[in-house]
Amino acid sequence: MSTKEATMTTQEVANRFNELSQTGQWELIQSELYAENAVSIEPEHSQGLKRAEGLEAIKQKGKQFGEMVEQMHGGYSNKPEVAGNHFAVAMGMDVTMKEMGRMKMDEIAVYEVKDGKIVKEQFFY
Amino acid sequence: MSTKEATMTTQEVANRFNELSQTGQWELIQSELYAENAVSIEPEHSQGLKRAEGLEAIKQKGKQFGEMVEQMHGGYSNKPEVAGNHFAVAMGMDVTMKEMGRMKMDEIAVYEVKDGKIVKEQFFY
Repeated sequence: MSTKEATMTTQEVANRFNELSQTGQWELIQSELYAENAVSIEPEHSQGLKRAEGLEAIKQKGKQFGEMVEQMHGGYSNKPEVAGNHFAVAMGMDVTMKEMGRMKMDEIAVYEVKDGKIVKEQFFY
Repeated sequence: MSTKEATMTTQEVANRFNELSQTGQWELIQSELYAENAVSIEPEHSQGLKRAEGLEAIKQKGKQFGEMVEQMHGGYSNKPEVAGNHFAVAMGMDVTMKEMGRMKMDEIAVYEVKDGKIVKEQFFY
């Protein structure tokens, strides 16, 4: 019996992502599925940080976003579409931000998987 | 009665894209759904043209790819996932290229819609 974990396929990473996203466990998604050197990319027109390098920076970015949230009213994360070493997810939220009021956000997120871990997340909105 | 066409929503563009892709009508997708100033972006590691600007350049790129194909054995284009002004499609093909032999390619394609037309296509593989 070996203690070595088998490397997950992209489909398996996507399945686990979906399993965790349905109950909003985004922090667990990051700590369990992301590579230490993962990169996060927002659109050019984004008003926030456009590129975060490394899991710590990505967690920090998530924390900063969380601090700007007044109230989360709802959200969704659809079933991932998998192709090769990538998967795409349509997701969104209905949120009241402290400075900007209530808004709905919808986006496509594309994830790149390498050696069983997410190495890149890229958002389109 | 007005001759002015209603601007399609992103969902409607995605539906029409899916309808045409199921029968492989890629040229019709381009001429019917793409904006004249549409942009096409391949990954950094792509061996071909990484960026094509304008519908004519995109059509030319498709033509060049077609000329490199020895035989197309099969392909698929899944149902689009729509979020906001983007939609994502998992797609792939089983193809024999003239110089490189037979291979399977799978990719995520992300489309940005503006004023009822596709203004950007971006591929992930």
